[in-house]
Amino acid sequence: MSDRLAEYEYFLHGGDYSPEQWKDSEITPEEDFYLQRLANCNTFTIGMFAWSDIEKEEGVFDFSLYDKVINMAYENGTRIILATPSGARPRWLAEKYPEVLRTRHDNVKEPFNTRHNHCFTSPVYREKVRIFNEKLAERYAGNPAVIAWHISNEYSFDCCCPLCIKAFREYLSKKFDNDIEKLNKEYCTSFWGHKYRSFEEIENPFNDSSIEGMLLDWRRFSSEQTVDFMNSEIRAIEKYGKDIPITTNMMPGYYHMDYTRFKNSVDMMSVDSYPQWNGPNHVDEAVNTAFWFSYFYNIKQKPFLLMESVPGAVSWRDVNKLKTNDTESLSAIQAIASGSDSVLYFQWRKSRGNYEKFHGAVVDHYGKEDTRIFRSVSNTGKLLEDIKEIKGATVKNGDIAILYDIESRWAFDESRGYSNKDKGYMKTCLDFYKYFWKNGIGTDVISKTDDFTKYKLVVLPMLYMTDESLSNKITDYVKNGGYVYANLVLGTVNENDLCYLGGIPAGELKNVFGIRNEEIDSLYDGDDYVTEYNGKNFSCSKYAEHLIPYEAKVLAEYTSEVFGKVPAVTVNEYGNGKAYYQAVYEESGLKESVLSSLIKELGIKPYIIFDAEKYKAVTACVRIKNKKEYMFVQNFGDIPAENVKVAGGWSDFFTGEKRYEISVNKNGYRILTRYVTDGE
Amino acid sequence: MSDRLAEYEYFLHGGDYSPEQWKDSEITPEEDFYLQRLANCNTFTIGMFAWSDIEKEEGVFDFSLYDKVINMAYENGTRIILATPSGARPRWLAEKYPEVLRTRHDNVKEPFNTRHNHCFTSPVYREKVRIFNEKLAERYAGNPAVIAWHISNEYSFDCCCPLCIKAFREYLSKKFDNDIEKLNKEYCTSFWGHKYRSFEEIENPFNDSSIEGMLLDWRRFSSEQTVDFMNSEIRAIEKYGKDIPITTNMMPGYYHMDYTRFKNSVDMMSVDSYPQWNGPNHVDEAVNTAFWFSYFYNIKQKPFLLMESVPGAVSWRDVNKLKTNDTESLSAIQAIASGSDSVLYFQWRKSRGNYEKFHGAVVDHYGKEDTRIFRSVSNTGKLLEDIKEIKGATVKNGDIAILYDIESRWAFDESRGYSNKDKGYMKTCLDFYKYFWKNGIGTDVISKTDDFTKYKLVVLPMLYMTDESLSNKITDYVKNGGYVYANLVLGTVNENDLCYLGGIPAGELKNVFGIRNEEIDSLYDGDDYVTEYNGKNFSCSKYAEHLIPYEAKVLAEYTSEVFGKVPAVTVNEYGNGKAYYQAVYEESGLKESVLSSLIKELGIKPYIIFDAEKYKAVTACVRIKNKKEYMFVQNFGDIPAENVKVAGGWSDFFTGEKRYEISVNKNGYRILTRYVTDGE
Amino acid sequence: MSDRLAEYEYFLHGGDYSPEQWKDSEITPEEDFYLQRLANCNTFTIGMFAWSDIEKEEGVFDFSLYDKVINMAYENGTRIILATPSGARPRWLAEKYPEVLRTRHDNVKEPFNTRHNHCFTSPVYREKVRIFNEKLAERYAGNPAVIAWHISNEYSFDCCCPLCIKAFREYLSKKFDNDIEKLNKEYCTSFWGHKYRSFEEIENPFNDSSIEGMLLDWRRFSSEQTVDFMNSEIRAIEKYGKDIPITTNMMPGYYHMDYTRFKNSVDMMSVDSYPQWNGPNHVDEAVNTAFWFSYFYNIKQKPFLLMESVPGAVSWRDVNKLKTNDTESLSAIQAIASGSDSVLYFQWRKSRGNYEKFHGAVVDHYGKEDTRIFRSVSNTGKLLEDIKEIKGATVKNGDIAILYDIESRWAFDESRGYSNKDKGYMKTCLDFYKYFWKNGIGTDVISKTDDFTKYKLVVLPMLYMTDESLSNKITDYVKNGGYVYANLVLGTVNENDLCYLGGIPAGELKNVFGIRNEEIDSLYDGDDYVTEYNGKNFSCSKYAEHLIPYEAKVLAEYTSEVFGKVPAVTVNEYGNGKAYYQAVYEESGLKESVLSSLIKELGIKPYIIFDAEKYKAVTACVRIKNKKEYMFVQNFGDIPAENVKVAGGWSDFFTGEKRYEISVNKNGYRILTRYVTDGE
Repeated sequence: MSDRLAEYEYFLHGGDYSPEQWKDSEITPEEDFYLQRLANCNTFTIGMFAWSDIEKEEGVFDFSLYDKVINMAYENGTRIILATPSGARPRWLAEKYPEVLRTRHDNVKEPFNTRHNHCFTSPVYREKVRIFNEKLAERYAGNPAVIAWHISNEYSFDCCCPLCIKAFREYLSKKFDNDIEKLNKEYCTSFWGHKYRSFEEIENPFNDSSIEGMLLDWRRFSSEQTVDFMNSEIRAIEKYGKDIPITTNMMPGYYHMDYTRFKNSVDMMSVDSYPQWNGPNHVDEAVNTAFWFSYFYNIKQKPFLLMESVPGAVSWRDVNKLKTNDTESLSAIQAIASGSDSVLYFQWRKSRGNYEKFHGAVVDHYGKEDTRIFRSVSNTGKLLEDIKEIKGATVKNGDIAILYDIESRWAFDESRGYSNKDKGYMKTCLDFYKYFWKNGIGTDVISKTDDFTKYKLVVLPMLYMTDESLSNKITDYVKNGGYVYANLVLGTVNENDLCYLGGIPAGELKNVFGIRNEEIDSLYDGDDYVTEYNGKNFSCSKYAEHLIPYEAKVLAEYTSEVFGKVPAVTVNEYGNGKAYYQAVYEESGLKESVLSSLIKELGIKPYIIFDAEKYKAVTACVRIKNKKEYMFVQNFGDIPAENVKVAGGWSDFFTGEKRYEISVNKNGYRILTRYVTDGE
Repeated sequence: MSDRLAEYEYFLHGGDYSPEQWKDSEITPEEDFYLQRLANCNTFTIGMFAWSDIEKEEGVFDFSLYDKVINMAYENGTRIILATPSGARPRWLAEKYPEVLRTRHDNVKEPFNTRHNHCFTSPVYREKVRIFNEKLAERYAGNPAVIAWHISNEYSFDCCCPLCIKAFREYLSKKFDNDIEKLNKEYCTSFWGHKYRSFEEIENPFNDSSIEGMLLDWRRFSSEQTVDFMNSEIRAIEKYGKDIPITTNMMPGYYHMDYTRFKNSVDMMSVDSYPQWNGPNHVDEAVNTAFWFSYFYNIKQKPFLLMESVPGAVSWRDVNKLKTNDTESLSAIQAIASGSDSVLYFQWRKSRGNYEKFHGAVVDHYGKEDTRIFRSVSNTGKLLEDIKEIKGATVKNGDIAILYDIESRWAFDESRGYSNKDKGYMKTCLDFYKYFWKNGIGTDVISKTDDFTKYKLVVLPMLYMTDESLSNKITDYVKNGGYVYANLVLGTVNENDLCYLGGIPAGELKNVFGIRNEEIDSLYDGDDYVTEYNGKNFSCSKYAEHLIPYEAKVLAEYTSEVFGKVPAVTVNEYGNGKAYYQAVYEESGLKESVLSSLIKELGIKPYIIFDAEKYKAVTACVRIKNKKEYMFVQNFGDIPAENVKVAGGWSDFFTGEKRYEISVNKNGYRILTRYVTDGE
Repeated sequence: MSDRLAEYEYFLHGGDYSPEQWKDSEITPEEDFYLQRLANCNTFTIGMFAWSDIEKEEGVFDFSLYDKVINMAYENGTRIILATPSGARPRWLAEKYPEVLRTRHDNVKEPFNTRHNHCFTSPVYREKVRIFNEKLAERYAGNPAVIAWHISNEYSFDCCCPLCIKAFREYLSKKFDNDIEKLNKEYCTSFWGHKYRSFEEIENPFNDSSIEGMLLDWRRFSSEQTVDFMNSEIRAIEKYGKDIPITTNMMPGYYHMDYTRFKNSVDMMSVDSYPQWNGPNHVDEAVNTAFWFSYFYNIKQKPFLLMESVPGAVSWRDVNKLKTNDTESLSAIQAIASGSDSVLYFQWRKSRGNYEKFHGAVVDHYGKEDTRIFRSVSNTGKLLEDIKEIKGATVKNGDIAILYDIESRWAFDESRGYSNKDKGYMKTCLDFYKYFWKNGIGTDVISKTDDFTKYKLVVLPMLYMTDESLSNKITDYVKNGGYVYANLVLGTVNENDLCYLGGIPAGELKNVFGIRNEEIDSLYDGDDYVTEYNGKNFSCSKYAEHLIPYEAKVLAEYTSEVFGKVPAVTVNEYGNGKAYYQAVYEESGLKESVLSSLIKELGIKPYIIFDAEKYKAVTACVRIKNKKEYMFVQNFGDIPAENVKVAGGWSDFFTGEKRYEISVNKNGYRILTRYVTDGE
């Protein structure tokens, strides 16, 4: 089947454009298309907030403005990403059909306000969206300018209305085979005497936050119900323009959404990315951004779209610092390096009023092209044209994978115990990732349903929740020669947050790792324990576990006030593989020291070799297309990186010159290329 | 027309007295009048909380206690400020007519509670207040002891009930000529697709806080509706005792009230002032207090009443520190110096129970005169008698004005963008004021409707919102030889918070200042930029703007990570005047350095000349009456100020001795006088 | 009358066991009874959360599981503490009878959730509990294994439903002789014009938080209504098994409950105690724990039960740190030393799911006995068996008492004024207690209704509220030779929080102490005053009072910015006693210096003599039984305490060796014994 986006030979460059904000004003679409060319942009995302403009009264549609814009796009060679309007419904819809309004956790119905606040279950809402979407698709799918469907906007689910609660009941009834006693058992509702007699008794789960398994299922249901709503949107458009790929924009770190569940509904992932560049955590933001790009890439294992990013600064942070010119281009390159086929901005032109009037845009209220940011965008556009051959390239898999398991995170966060301020899940994932990233080692962020066998090493940060299938998967992987590195609370609960009996990690994992984890101590701030590994001391904080090694070899020990001298890191040979376990939380370099040996043992080679102690923020990604590799070396540090060695066979992308060693500017990048048959 | 208060030859001294709290107790009015004489007091404010005592049942009035007290006042020569009771309604009124109760932002109706929480729109409430007020006025206006009407108490508006929302709709309909499309355009409701189809669709604006222009209009409406309510109160009393001036007590820093709108309704401004004296910010509190006194004075350009202040300490702060004896008298003198014709206290006698039982008072629960505070009040009373000839004097205008524009403050605070923790408006105003205050330079705090032409220099701190008329006013002022000093976000939006297109500052202001402000960077804490002015370095924080100077001369430059080396301060000659613009926020002395030269250039002379670096908190104010000037030199510092020089012609008020140089005690003051014809 | 618990010769050791959580699981009661023996436990507390399991449908009871467990207990010699189930009602009860659900302060009815959230006034709830309790008692009272009734669980009251408000009205009507004017006067409702016309007008007191006297009465009512509910529970069981003592578990520091009101309803006090052991405030937690144990002991002047404590760590703190092994046993001994006849744990076995799944337990999810904590519990069980002869011993009264007056605390906390962040009541009580505790001086924490005459010295920390009877009691006590040491805000208000007129401390207390307290200054953090006592300087913070000494001798003076040089500590001879007053708040050792002399003057002897400066956390308690004394010397410090001298006649409890000097390990203890006739 053809795919208009895949066939387009350029990286998409452009952004969200709201022509309806400029109706009856001096700013015409002609002006915007004129400026677009000056900005080296080729794409507009439109329609997201157009509902109330197009359908002013129920059933009365006026597409004239959109007809004009989309035709003009076609004439100008501009590509259109066309959004369905469900993210922001008209006021009349809320007034006429109050069921479309969300109900809060405390059972109070929200008034009409802001956006992203409709009920996903409401049949009325679904029907009204269907009608609109169908008209949209019917009208514009035939226009070749339309290159992708952008379903709604930044989906989020948070409605506890009776319709949603009913749907939740049905979800649970199905899950538990319509057997309330199964639910009672898995939720341990005998605790505090909260047993259910029937599924009809299930109410808003936030009424009674003591049933942790149900809160976990609410999160699953929330994601599922979102996907179900999205599917209903997609059904309304998919009969038109089968060659137009479908996507929706997702948010790194959106805690309440399990995006792996979107995988089969969309043709591409899209990402909205708003790091706090040039702030005090510049490097951590780069790591964080790369982590999420990898996660989204790997869900579908194919290029995604950077759907939103900001030129300049956003408007909603406490402090909204502008990006420097070099960060503007480096952050665009980071997305491309990580597998994006676009650099798109929110927003094309600043609105004159309201919430986002000071949110960065290509075109400011000033309205002309002679601004620093306009020039910066224009330069990025030029760059993207220069490297257009890379568009569509896949990202080279790393030797290492990090398992980011949103369900473990949800469950552990929701569980009272140990450290209730911050369980530390995300920090732990990022700490692992950062180590590999800073050493230029290809590393993929994956989900628990992904294939482990592609990797030499799979890292399992705080893998609190292991169901039988995940447990088996880990066991098989190690048995067959894989290496795993787990740390903390591994295998504590089953898929319903029910504690495993008989010692943790549960079941066969005890044998894989050769340990039993008897107790978990939580440490006060400043109350650190000392860990010794290879003759060096490391301090550990927050958590310290009491391991009983069955078979495992002890690699490091620590001294705990409570337990005495006990293992801090163990390794166990199991089948043809090895399983490492780290019993302590730390930010002192312990895991890095252990992993450093392990990487050598496994013969894992970084993309680049350089002084990682001195240049703290240099990294590399590789994309592959048509047997050609493209390496993007990026320096997020505040000094130029010198003497960065690359393995044989690389040439500078722009000059064609052979390169064995390169330097990279502060907030700069280099692009190298080679033929796959040349190299390893 | 005669005016009983103007005719009274003494400064008012006394305070809020609640005889109804002592009914059926051993504390009689006779006792209070006896103690009043000992305390050198001459005034009682009564009636504020008397409603439920006088009208115990609807329509049944018992004025006997008030008859007694007011007659006793007359017999004792005590003056009465008579309050209307609307600040605290009886319980029966709330029970019988729930519409009088406020509705919160979240649409929940408040129960009967505390005070200041009735609906200003409710016809029932207005009618009940009218009946009471009329009876009060009819009964007491004829008693010469009654020297002023005190309308309600510390008006505040915060009701979202259906009656108020309806009134708001009518307010908007009138403002936008009953044309909903005008509203849509000015509010930019196409943003997020929030267009209104009719005024009937307008709901509680807090339902949907994304429409910033409407939130701004809600504030305007709140102030207007308050004034409208107040006017309805005044109409009920004004037919009686036309020679009794009308006032209401206002609050410095009451964020939600635009007191300039009270100007035409009251005969005098009254101020409740509760600085945190003797605390760690003693001097800043003095500056702050002086700022607000100046603001209130200038609204009507005539003496105001200090209606409430505290003897000792209040009861509602986290820490309620007592005032020292010298601060007690200095703070009284500061009010007089700033244009007050009174020193009044809340409260005369501590209540036996509830919220304010530990709030400072002249008479403590102890009940007798042999206390530190009673003696202190008594001394202040003696002092006020000694200087009674100053009563009624006007305050001498300064050469400099600072424009405090509550609407710019509201709009900028409400706008998301740049720095969302604290936009810094108030701090910026106070920083300017403090510089002049600490150098003894006469400076007026004015509103945007006031006359600029009286001043040599008008300071425009963060004047974010400039409508056409304000823009023209500034332009004309400079053209005709005026100097202005603006800083930051000047002329960004119109009167509806709609961003100006075409570059800021908007319209002709670009020519007046000779600059375009391309971008605004927001800085993290500690992330300072360095500014160079006259060979000296100053650091700047929080905001840094990217100016493109058209015509302006660059006085100072700074180095921005984002923009490079760009102007920090510019000046532009325009017509016969000059317009300064400061592009950076700072607390490092930059503005002081520039202003210091400017003051010399303009020939502005301070009232006093002294070592302002050493004595950090010495200032002076001048009042004028009958061709005589009275200068109040005040030292809020913690060391005595020596060698304070005053221009020729001044004598000590008390001794008559000629003075060229004076010293002022720590927390002390000096009063000097001269005939206007003597001096400059 | 016989008493099964008194007749049982062992300390109770065991904990809360929820067999209903393990129905239909591999974990059988047999397994739990087997492990119980290994853990040297002899007691299970059961039934607390069993309601929904036993009465699955209204009126349908299934006691089979409990029959089995209680019979098994009997067969195993295990004792059962049998809980009534009212702490956690079934879901069907809430659904069918919504009146049983609590209503919050803001008048919103709570949904069914968590636990401890039913209305104590609801006739339906009382009736349903009565039926269940009666069945329970009828069924199990005859089983000798049942050794105590455990009424409900951690009673708390917080319901503002119409039924509760009606009951509150009746409570007030009774209190004020059905005379609303009495209420108006005592509540000072004329303040802000809030007078009531009838008791029917009284609503939820949180609607109007400005009436402080009513909020105080709400607290009293809350405690009374709780006791009334508890009494209704007790009536349902007391006709069965008259030899089974009745208790309920209470919480140290449960702010909203006045436990002295429980005195006549229960046969024994029970305490749930969860200090933050091994954390940064280890010693303060020990002091705090000892304080509350003494308070609970003294309410009934007889041994209590430590009903709940945690093995390991709890799950609900921010950081949940495990206890070390030595702290596990020392904390058990501390309870015994303080008068407990038990060491009981929450919980016996960790639940598999929900809120407390990670809350410490004897048996972990692991399920076996080879864990650190299981061994620790087992050791404690062995220890308790070794010292079983001490069970039932009374605690020896100290020479000193500290009056903890919950009503003064409530009233002062609720009153706006002075310091509103934290009035400091509890800190002040604990500071006094800590001084005596750290010096091994026997000190009782008592209530205002207790007998003062047993003590040589009664300390009155911040005794803000003194009614006539308390005032008389203090007066008589001093007159007859007693010593008192008061500090701050003494005798400020009457029992309704109404300020006393005529100077404080009120009435005769002015003569007892020989002072008048004119003013109270509140100090900012860091704004300390200097106090001189015996040639040494002490700094004082937070509060500084302005005393006018009538007759009192000034012992210490301080220099206040506001008052000048005024008394900091005074002493007055009155009758045959002395009354000390300390006018300043401090943590600098002033009170300790004054008390040190005073203790010598009074000839008070500590239980142990040692270097209290060096060993900062050594203390001792003495219990007495059958003319034999048992001294528990405890060291909560982090170094071993050496050279701890004990008076003549003591022998080591375990070895029988005579002892004049002992050493005590870090987190260790020693038990000594002697015959009363031997010693002093």
